[in-house]
Amino acid sequence: MTTERKVAIICSKAGLDEVYPGLILANAARQSGIEAFIFFTFWGLDAITEKKVDHLHVNLAGNAASGMPTIVGGLPGMEALAAHMMKKQMAELELPTVREMMQILDEAGATLYACELAMKMFKRTQEDLIPQVKEVITAGDFYDLADGAQIIFT
Amino acid sequence: MTTERKVAIICSKAGLDEVYPGLILANAARQSGIEAFIFFTFWGLDAITEKKVDHLHVNLAGNAASGMPTIVGGLPGMEALAAHMMKKQMAELELPTVREMMQILDEAGATLYACELAMKMFKRTQEDLIPQVKEVITAGDFYDLADGAQIIFT
Amino acid sequence: MTTERKVAIICSKAGLDEVYPGLILANAARQSGIEAFIFFTFWGLDAITEKKVDHLHVNLAGNAASGMPTIVGGLPGMEALAAHMMKKQMAELELPTVREMMQILDEAGATLYACELAMKMFKRTQEDLIPQVKEVITAGDFYDLADGAQIIFT
Repeated sequence: MTTERKVAIICSKAGLDEVYPGLILANAARQSGIEAFIFFTFWGLDAITEKKVDHLHVNLAGNAASGMPTIVGGLPGMEALAAHMMKKQMAELELPTVREMMQILDEAGATLYACELAMKMFKRTQEDLIPQVKEVITAGDFYDLADGAQIIFT
Repeated sequence: MTTERKVAIICSKAGLDEVYPGLILANAARQSGIEAFIFFTFWGLDAITEKKVDHLHVNLAGNAASGMPTIVGGLPGMEALAAHMMKKQMAELELPTVREMMQILDEAGATLYACELAMKMFKRTQEDLIPQVKEVITAGDFYDLADGAQIIFT
Repeated sequence: MTTERKVAIICSKAGLDEVYPGLILANAARQSGIEAFIFFTFWGLDAITEKKVDHLHVNLAGNAASGMPTIVGGLPGMEALAAHMMKKQMAELELPTVREMMQILDEAGATLYACELAMKMFKRTQEDLIPQVKEVITAGDFYDLADGAQIIFT
């Protein structure tokens, strides 16, 4: 007996290129009629933090595939430039921004949760978060919600 | 009722050290009689791109475990050197190269898919990909294929 | 028919900030009565290596969220400083160190395994590992143990 299919995504990093895959996978799940929620923890918390969500960088230095030597990727401003280029590319593809994705996910019925421990680590309160975040939950709550789900840790 | 066991691997990064774990896990799954496929998306697309597959770098700067200060890891040529050393180590262990792994996976019955969105982002066509790639699919297709699978996002 | 719930965590990286999520998720699983084990592979092997476990760095350069330009993150000593600051933050939250987490996990009944292939790559023997590691196993063994589990690749 198959109960409703469910996807539990853990978003633990905050590079623009690290956040999109989880958001896109959550949205694709909803489009396929699969229940989906995202648990934002550690650095991933930035993606749902009001002051950070529009300023996520591309993880250039940490990305061997970028084709640039790391020293160039490491120059001040280069990551911002890469983020700008990636955002332009996203716009060309008519891909929504991260903030827009959060709105889309909310409307599509994907639920967004913030990790309580990460909130304490980064000294944030629910007021610091974007309005689409439903609740601050513990890792134990995460497991309750993720019962029977396919877990995707990004 | 347990149907056939299945593993769905998402390969989203392209460092040599980031690609191998997914390939090895896919191959180990097949050796254990488990159905396995890999979905290459975002930077991971490089691992199945003809012009890139033989030139993946080791993710030195992004790797705290390398024991080198990042500034050294960031010097031009150091990543290529690290990749060279890692390849030598792989050869000593008689581990196949990434390109050889793709052939082995194909023969072992693991299926390789490219992500349609990533193909558009990086402006690639199926002709740019290695011959073992079966098909370019959407994230929605991925979920269809991953029904009942253990998902491993690497 | 639901058999006992199980979580199989793969720890493949060794940044302090990359290791904690897996350890915390394993512990939270045990607290929720869920069977849990961790498979340490590739760089993740450092987290269970006696000489490395107390000296894991924060993955600054590879972390777009740190708010520092990468070139600063790349300066020698900056990662050690970041690791020191993160450890202080952890201590404030009364979070155990990585070594203490291993002890806690062991007592909580989470099992720790080392990957045989990674052991060969890094030329380590079981004597190099912390005492809480139960066994060195292959990827095939991993799949046997992970049968029916939710897999979390960190």
